[in-house]
Amino acid sequence: MTEVPAATGAWRTGSGEISDSVLSRIDTWWRTANYLSVGQIYLLDNPLLREPLTADHVKPRLLGHWGTTPGLTFLYAHLNRAIAERQQSTIYITGPGHGGPGLVASAYLDGTYSEVYSDITEDAEGLRRLFRQFSFPGGVPSHVAPETPGSIHEGGELGYALSHAYGAVFDNPDLLVAAVVGDGEAETGPLATSWHSNKFVNPRADGVVLPILHLNGYKIANPTVLARISEDELTDLMVGYGHKPHVFTAGFDDEEPLSVHRRFATLLDEVLDEIAAIKAKAAQGDLERPMWPMIVFRTPKGWTGPDYIDGKKTTGSWRAHQVPLANARDTPEHLKVLEDWLRSYRPEELFDADGRVIEDVRALAPTGTLRMSDSPYANGGLLLHDLRLPDFREYAVDVPSPGGSISEAPRVLGQWLTDVIRLNPDNFRIFGPDETASNRLQAVFDATDKQWNAEFDGPEVDEHLARAGRVLEMLSEHQMQGWLEGYLLTGRHGLFNCYEAFIHIVDSMVNQHAKWLKVTADIPWRRPIASLNYLLSSHVWRQDHNGFSHQDPGFIDHVINKKAEVVRVYLPPDANTLLSTYDHCLRSRDYINVVVSGKQPAPNFLTMEQAVAHCTRGLGIWDWAGTEIPGKEPDVVLAAAGDVPTLEVLAAADILRRELPVLMVRVVNVVDLMRLQDEREHPHGLSDREFDNIFTADRPIVFAYHGYPWLIHRLTYRRNGHSNLHVRGYKEEGTTTTPFDMVMLNDLDRYKLVIDVIDHVHWLRTGQANLRQKMVDARLRAREYTRAYGEDIPEVRDWVWPEAGDGAAAAMSAASATGGDNE
Amino acid sequence: MTEVPAATGAWRTGSGEISDSVLSRIDTWWRTANYLSVGQIYLLDNPLLREPLTADHVKPRLLGHWGTTPGLTFLYAHLNRAIAERQQSTIYITGPGHGGPGLVASAYLDGTYSEVYSDITEDAEGLRRLFRQFSFPGGVPSHVAPETPGSIHEGGELGYALSHAYGAVFDNPDLLVAAVVGDGEAETGPLATSWHSNKFVNPRADGVVLPILHLNGYKIANPTVLARISEDELTDLMVGYGHKPHVFTAGFDDEEPLSVHRRFATLLDEVLDEIAAIKAKAAQGDLERPMWPMIVFRTPKGWTGPDYIDGKKTTGSWRAHQVPLANARDTPEHLKVLEDWLRSYRPEELFDADGRVIEDVRALAPTGTLRMSDSPYANGGLLLHDLRLPDFREYAVDVPSPGGSISEAPRVLGQWLTDVIRLNPDNFRIFGPDETASNRLQAVFDATDKQWNAEFDGPEVDEHLARAGRVLEMLSEHQMQGWLEGYLLTGRHGLFNCYEAFIHIVDSMVNQHAKWLKVTADIPWRRPIASLNYLLSSHVWRQDHNGFSHQDPGFIDHVINKKAEVVRVYLPPDANTLLSTYDHCLRSRDYINVVVSGKQPAPNFLTMEQAVAHCTRGLGIWDWAGTEIPGKEPDVVLAAAGDVPTLEVLAAADILRRELPVLMVRVVNVVDLMRLQDEREHPHGLSDREFDNIFTADRPIVFAYHGYPWLIHRLTYRRNGHSNLHVRGYKEEGTTTTPFDMVMLNDLDRYKLVIDVIDHVHWLRTGQANLRQKMVDARLRAREYTRAYGEDIPEVRDWVWPEAGDGAAAAMSAASATGGDNE
Repeated sequence: MTEVPAATGAWRTGSGEISDSVLSRIDTWWRTANYLSVGQIYLLDNPLLREPLTADHVKPRLLGHWGTTPGLTFLYAHLNRAIAERQQSTIYITGPGHGGPGLVASAYLDGTYSEVYSDITEDAEGLRRLFRQFSFPGGVPSHVAPETPGSIHEGGELGYALSHAYGAVFDNPDLLVAAVVGDGEAETGPLATSWHSNKFVNPRADGVVLPILHLNGYKIANPTVLARISEDELTDLMVGYGHKPHVFTAGFDDEEPLSVHRRFATLLDEVLDEIAAIKAKAAQGDLERPMWPMIVFRTPKGWTGPDYIDGKKTTGSWRAHQVPLANARDTPEHLKVLEDWLRSYRPEELFDADGRVIEDVRALAPTGTLRMSDSPYANGGLLLHDLRLPDFREYAVDVPSPGGSISEAPRVLGQWLTDVIRLNPDNFRIFGPDETASNRLQAVFDATDKQWNAEFDGPEVDEHLARAGRVLEMLSEHQMQGWLEGYLLTGRHGLFNCYEAFIHIVDSMVNQHAKWLKVTADIPWRRPIASLNYLLSSHVWRQDHNGFSHQDPGFIDHVINKKAEVVRVYLPPDANTLLSTYDHCLRSRDYINVVVSGKQPAPNFLTMEQAVAHCTRGLGIWDWAGTEIPGKEPDVVLAAAGDVPTLEVLAAADILRRELPVLMVRVVNVVDLMRLQDEREHPHGLSDREFDNIFTADRPIVFAYHGYPWLIHRLTYRRNGHSNLHVRGYKEEGTTTTPFDMVMLNDLDRYKLVIDVIDHVHWLRTGQANLRQKMVDARLRAREYTRAYGEDIPEVRDWVWPEAGDGAAAAMSAASATGGDNE
Repeated sequence: MTEVPAATGAWRTGSGEISDSVLSRIDTWWRTANYLSVGQIYLLDNPLLREPLTADHVKPRLLGHWGTTPGLTFLYAHLNRAIAERQQSTIYITGPGHGGPGLVASAYLDGTYSEVYSDITEDAEGLRRLFRQFSFPGGVPSHVAPETPGSIHEGGELGYALSHAYGAVFDNPDLLVAAVVGDGEAETGPLATSWHSNKFVNPRADGVVLPILHLNGYKIANPTVLARISEDELTDLMVGYGHKPHVFTAGFDDEEPLSVHRRFATLLDEVLDEIAAIKAKAAQGDLERPMWPMIVFRTPKGWTGPDYIDGKKTTGSWRAHQVPLANARDTPEHLKVLEDWLRSYRPEELFDADGRVIEDVRALAPTGTLRMSDSPYANGGLLLHDLRLPDFREYAVDVPSPGGSISEAPRVLGQWLTDVIRLNPDNFRIFGPDETASNRLQAVFDATDKQWNAEFDGPEVDEHLARAGRVLEMLSEHQMQGWLEGYLLTGRHGLFNCYEAFIHIVDSMVNQHAKWLKVTADIPWRRPIASLNYLLSSHVWRQDHNGFSHQDPGFIDHVINKKAEVVRVYLPPDANTLLSTYDHCLRSRDYINVVVSGKQPAPNFLTMEQAVAHCTRGLGIWDWAGTEIPGKEPDVVLAAAGDVPTLEVLAAADILRRELPVLMVRVVNVVDLMRLQDEREHPHGLSDREFDNIFTADRPIVFAYHGYPWLIHRLTYRRNGHSNLHVRGYKEEGTTTTPFDMVMLNDLDRYKLVIDVIDHVHWLRTGQANLRQKMVDARLRAREYTRAYGEDIPEVRDWVWPEAGDGAAAAMSAASATGGDNE
C-alpha cells in the first residue's frame, strides 16, 4: 500500500494538490464499500472470500438493488475526504434510495454501524452477519431505511430527495446536504418541481443543498429521459432551475482510477469553494439569490460490475438495476461470474486477518458526528428542543353563552401561532401551498413574513414577502410536505395548512412518513421527532368559490389505515377547542395529527375552560344542548363530529326541544375521532363501557359526521350501539354554492336530522307525521330560496342557539352577508 | 364598426398581412368575452347595462375567479382566427381552470352554449340566465367543468394541463391542443415533469401540443416563481424542457389594442408555421424529436380590470385572482367601480337590440366542429369505437384440476393484450411507470414497442424502444394517469399498470376523474367514454426486493369513497379469472375499474368455464374446496378476496379436512368486491337474502382479505352475518422478504386461519386444543425456518391443493426456487 497521511494530517502536496496517496485511499475505500455492497446482496457466508466460492455461500433468494450503489459509494468516499478536510457538517440524502447496501456499507466503514448494532462487529463474524441480514427475513430492508444510520429518508417511493434536503437546511446555516437525485427519480413530478426550492433559501440563515444528479442512464427497464437529451439541453434545464451545473463523466472508458478520482476531487473542491464564496458574500449581507452549484454525475449504471452476463450487456444498462446475476448459484459459470466480480475489488487487500477493514481505509472517514452516518441532523430527535408555547388559554375567545359569539376559528389560532413564532424564531415554520392567508392564519404576518428569494417587485404587490420569514409557500403540496418532513426529521417543528380536498395530493408521502415513524419507534437509537401537524381548512362543506372538485373529506379515511400508534384525527367544533387541540399537537411527538377546522364565521360554543375539559376527554355529552332527565336513559342520541355537523346537530336539537319537549335528547360532540375506536384498536379508544355510557347501548344514535359516513361505522362496528347507529355525512354530492344547500344536498341538515330522529325513535314514527311533514316542507322552502336569491334562507342563515343572546344573531347575520371570502 | 371580411373570406391584405379589420374583430370579440365574464361573476340582472346599475342587479354572493380570465379569452379569440383561417382541428385546455367564466363566455360566443343548453338563448333573457346561473345554486360551477362545452378538464386541482393535452394528441395526428399552463399550476410537481412529454410524441402519428405558459405573475396571495426569475432563466428552462420558447409580453404599457393584437397574431402564425414545418418534415419520414415551439404569454393578472380598488393595486396583482371587488354592492363608490368596469368594454357596441351578440363579433368563430367548444375531441364519447377484443377464452391456461397448474397471472393477461394491441392499432394504449415488464406484461412487446422519442443508444441497451409503440412508460405515476385520462377523454381505450403501493401517488387525480365521470353521467350531451382501467400488480403481499415502503393496499379504500356508480374493484384469484375480469373491464364505459393481481407464480384454480361463471356471479361458493353436506348449513365459512388470501384459505381448508374431517367448511371466493355491499349502496351489491345464502346468517365467517381488514367490515356492516365476521388482512406490519413470512406477520396465514376457525366455532374451542397448539407450533417452525434459510419452509413453499396432481407440486417448488424476480 502507498503511504498515506493520517486523516487529520496533510491532505495536500506542497503545491496544494490533493496527494496521490489520498486519491489512492479514496479508491481503496470505494473498492471496499463496493465489495461490502455486493457481499450484502449475494453472500450468506464466506464473507472474506478466503475459500473458493460455492453455491452454499450464496443466498437462496437474491434481493436488492445494485445499479445505483457504486455511484453512491463513490460520492460518499469523496465527500468523506472533503468533510474531513473542511470539517463541514454534512448529511447525505440518496434519492435513489435503492442503493441500500451502499449506505449500509458506508456506515459500516465509518464505524457507526457497529456502534449502533453491536452484533455487527468489525470482524469476519460481523461481516458475515452484515451480509446475511441484508434483505433477509428478520434482517434489514433492501433500501436506505430508518434502520440505516445517517438516513432521514426511506428509499421506497421516489421524488422527495430535494424537498427533504431543503427542509433539512432551513434554519441550519452550517449544514451542507449532499442530495443525490437519481435520474429515474428526476422524472417524477415532485422532484421536477423541487429544483425550484432554491428560490426559497436564505443564503445566510439557511444551510446549503448540493444537488448531485446521478445520471446513470437507466431505470428498471428503460433509459432515463435526462440521460437521453443533449448535454446542452440538460445544462439549460439546470440553469433554468436556477443552478450552475458542473458536469462530471467517468466510467465509460479506460481512464485510470486515480485520474478519475483526481478529476472528481478537484471538481468537488471547486464546487465547495463556490459554495463557500456564496456563504461569505451572504455573511456580508448580500442575500440575493445566487446560482447555487450542482453536479451532473454521469457514470455507468452498476459501475464496476460485470460488463456482460450471459452475453447481455449489464453494466451500463438497465439490467444492472436490481440483482444483475439473479441466478448466481444455478451454474458453475454464474458462480464464477460472481466470484470474479467480488475478487475484482481485491478483498485480500481490504481486510486484516480478523476480517476488520484495514486502518488505512477507515482513516478516510471524518470523526465523530462529522461522519455522515452519525450526524445528529440525521437523527433529528437528538437536536429537538421543546417549543416555547404561550398559554393558549390567553388567546381564548369570549363565549358568554353557547353560540354567544362568532369567530373564524383558524383566525383565532393564527393569533396564538403569531406568538409561537415570536417565541421560537428559529425552529418553527408554517408551510402552505399559497393558502396561509386564505386559511385565515394571516395574523402570523404581524410577526413574520413569507420567505422568498426570487425577484421582488415592490410593496404594492409583494405583501409580507421577505428574504427571511417563518412561512414558506409554494403552489405544490408535494413540496410543502417534503420541506416539512425534512424540517421535522432534522429536529424542528412545524405545521402544514392546506385545503382539505387537496391534501390527498400527498397521500402517498403521508404513507411513507407514517411508515418511517412506525419503524423508528422500534429503533432505540432513533430519538422521537416532533409530530407532523396538519391544519385542513377550506373543508368539504364550505367551498363557496369552488365546487365539487374541491370537496373531499377522505384524507381522514386515508390516514386511519396507518398504524394506530402514529395517527391522530381531531375535529374541533369551534375556536377554543381548536386552540386547545393545537396546543396539544405542537407538544406531541412522533404522530401525524390531522386537524380539520372550517375558516368561515361560525358560532363559538365552549368557553376555554369547557373547551379544555372537552378536548381532554376527546368527546362528551353537551348537557346544555340536550333535554335529558338525570338518571334516565335518553330517547335518542344526537352526535356530531366536525364544525358544520355540530352546528346542524344543535339546530336540530333546538327544533326538537321546541317541537317535541317531552323527547329526551342527548347531544354528544366528538373532537378526537380515535376515541370512537375500540381500545384494542387504538390507544385513544374508549372501553365498551365508556362508549355505552356516552352513546347508550340500545338507543338510536343519529350521528352527523364531517366526512364519508361509513368511516363512523368502521370505527364503531364492534360497539354495542352499532346496530342503532345512523350516520349522515358527505356522499359525493356537491357542486353548490350556498352553505346550507350543501348540507341539504348531503342530508346532513337540521331538518333531515330531525326526520331521522322521528324515523328511528319507535314511538315517534306514527305520532309525528305532522312534524315530519313540516321538516320536509322546510327543506323544500330552503332549497327554493337559494335558487331564487342565491343565498341561504334567513331562518337558517341567521340561526343561533336560542340562549346565545341577541348580539350573536346579529353577528351571524352580518357574517353571513358577505359573499364568502373563500378561495 | 370597421368593415371586416366574412369568416370564410379573405383574412389578409394584398401583401399577406392580417388586415386591421380582422384585428379589430378580434379585439371586439375579446371585449365581448370579457364583458360576458365580468357579467357572470357579478350580475343578477340588467345584463346589457341598458339601465343604470343598482345594488339589486348585483349577486348577493360574489364567487368565481377573474384573474386568469382575460388572458384565456384573449388566446381564445386569436386561436379562433387561426383555426378559421387554417381549418385546424383544435381543442383548448386551460390549465388554470379557474377562468370558468371566460370559457363559458367563449362557448356562448361560439354559439355552442345555446345549442347544448337551450334555455340560455342568444338574447337579453338568455344573457340574464347565463349571468345568473354562474356560481349560483342550481347553476354551473365557477371552474371550467364537465358542464362547460369544449372542456376535457375540470378546473379544480392544478397540475395536469399538459399531461391531459399530450394524452389527447397520442394517435390523433391532425389534432392541435392549445394547452394553457398557469404560472401557479406550473409550480406543481406533476406539471413540472409533464413538459418532458415531448420526448414521447411521434411527430407523424401523433398530434401537436402547443404549450402556452400564462405568466400573469400571481397566485391567490403570492407572486409565482416563474414570473420572478429572469427571462433568460425562464427561456433556458423551456429549452431544457425541449421547447423553443417565444416570449410575448403585453398589457403593461399603453400600447394600442390593435398593435397588441397584430403582434400576437403574427407570433401565433409564426408558431403555427413552425409546427406545420415540423409536421411536413415528419410526413417525409424525419421523426427525430424536434424542438416544438411554445409561447410564454406574459400579461397582467386581471388584465382590463380596475387598476386600483380602494387604493390597492388590483389588476396586475394577486388581488385580481378571485373576485376583485368582493363587496360590489355595499357602497355607491364600489357599485360605480363595477359599472365603469363593465362599461369599459362598451357593451352598447357588442349586442343588437334583442341582446344578441352582433354578427360581426360572432363571425370570428370557426364553424361547426372546428369551434373549440364543439370539438368532438372534447366530448370523446362521440369518437369512441368499441375495441375489437379477441376471445379471451382462447388464452385460457389449462387447469386439469384445482391448483393443477401454475401461472403468473399478468403474464397470461399479457398474451391476450398482445392481440388486443394487434387488433386495435390506433386506439388502445398501455401506460406504466417503467413497470410494464416488471408487472409481467412483456408479451405485449411481441406486438409493439415502447414509444420513445428522446435519444437512442443501440439494441444492446434499448430493448423494445421505438419512435412508435403502444406502450408508454415514464417514471411518473402522475404523468401516466394524466396521459391515460387525456387519451380516454378524447375517445380511446387504455390501461394503467402500476405497483399497488404507489398508485396512491395519483389518489387526488383519481378523485377528480371520478367526479368528472359522476357529473358527466348527468349531462345528456356528454357521451360515455371508456373506463379507466388499473392493473395493480406487485402488490402488498409480494414486495420481495423492496419492503415496508412498498406495501400499501389502501387504494381500494380510497376509490370506494367515490360515487358507487363509478367504481368497480376486482380481485381475481388466478389467471383465468383475471382474463375474464379484464375482458369485462375493457368493454365497460364510464367506470374506474381497479383490478389487483399478483405477478408471482401461483396456482390456477378455475378452468376458463368455471372462471367465467365465477366472474359473472362476482363471488361464489367453491364446492370442491369445502366439506359441506348438501342441505345442511356449514359450521364455518372460510372466505377469501385476493390471490394470496385465496391460497391461504385453501391451504387452511386443506388442513381442516385432514385434521377435522367432521367439520363442515364452506369456502367462498370473492372476485367483485362490490358484491359485498348492500344493493342499496352499490349497483353490484347483493341483496340480504343472497348474502345470507352464501355467507349464512349466523355461522362464523373467517374472511381473508387482500387489503386493510376493516374495509370488509365497512362493506358488510349491515349484513345479518356481520357480528360473526372475523377478518384478516394487512395491518401495516411488513418489512420481510419471504412470502409466507409476510402473511404470518399479518396473521393471514393458513395456520392462523385454522386457529381462527377453532376459536370461533363454539364446539371446537374446548375440544381442539391439540390442533390449535399444532398450528401455533407450525407457525413458529415456519418463522424459524425463514430466519435460518432465507426462504419459506418447504411444506409451505411447495404446498399445492391435494387434488392438484404431482406435476403441480413440482412446478410450484421450481417456481418458488428463484429469488423472486420482483422489482
